[in-house]
Amino acid sequence: MEPRIVRANAGKTKIAPEDMFVGQVLQDQIFVPEDPSRLRVTRVTFTPGGRTNWHAHAVGQILYVLSGVGRYQREGEPVEEISAGDTVIIPPNTRHWHGAAPDQMMCHLALSETDDAGHATSWLEPVSEDDYTKATT
Amino acid sequence: MEPRIVRANAGKTKIAPEDMFVGQVLQDQIFVPEDPSRLRVTRVTFTPGGRTNWHAHAVGQILYVLSGVGRYQREGEPVEEISAGDTVIIPPNTRHWHGAAPDQMMCHLALSETDDAGHATSWLEPVSEDDYTKATT
Repeated sequence: MEPRIVRANAGKTKIAPEDMFVGQVLQDQIFVPEDPSRLRVTRVTFTPGGRTNWHAHAVGQILYVLSGVGRYQREGEPVEEISAGDTVIIPPNTRHWHGAAPDQMMCHLALSETDDAGHATSWLEPVSEDDYTKATT
Repeated sequence: MEPRIVRANAGKTKIAPEDMFVGQVLQDQIFVPEDPSRLRVTRVTFTPGGRTNWHAHAVGQILYVLSGVGRYQREGEPVEEISAGDTVIIPPNTRHWHGAAPDQMMCHLALSETDDAGHATSWLEPVSEDDYTKATT
């Protein structure tokens, strides 16, 4: 873990990979694990309709919504609306997805930790239009 | 780690304790460690002149500046200006402080992890006016 300040104008915004996301999603890497830290921090910006595939985390995940209006669903539960200032707490090994609302963009910080074996995220199949467009609670 | 959404209007903003901070500093708790996660997330808002005491972290700390203009110093290094979008990476057991600029407020997320013994932060003495007002690099 090297001491440093990473300025806002460093790094490059990346397009999120198509095999893990649906729609146009942009990623800014904030921090990747450096021993002894196990933390990964990514700022993710979902354009309207954009979302993650279904996925799960070995040590869970915290989402902190910075701006906009989005969606979150834990498998077997209703789709929920999330917006700026909300925090989503996702336990280990829980299938879920998150993304923008159909007509609004959403930006969040995604915080996850690696386990003792270095595992963090398991990526699964895309979220269908049918699942994505279900009414929110 | 219980699955849930903590809404932006839940919780209460607290005044940061006088024995760990100088000036008016406000804290919003975002997440406290819940097994197996070791992560603590706090949103900290420093009014002009407000700053932490000197302190150190067992597993280091990541600061992500959300808004405003602030100051950061690692002991023995110059005081640095930080502003929105900057990330500060602070290794374990490194004496440092952070806060607002003298004439501008600053808000950051503070991300830290506990070690195997449950240790996170060691609080030390206040940052003197002389140290606080040194020219930034």
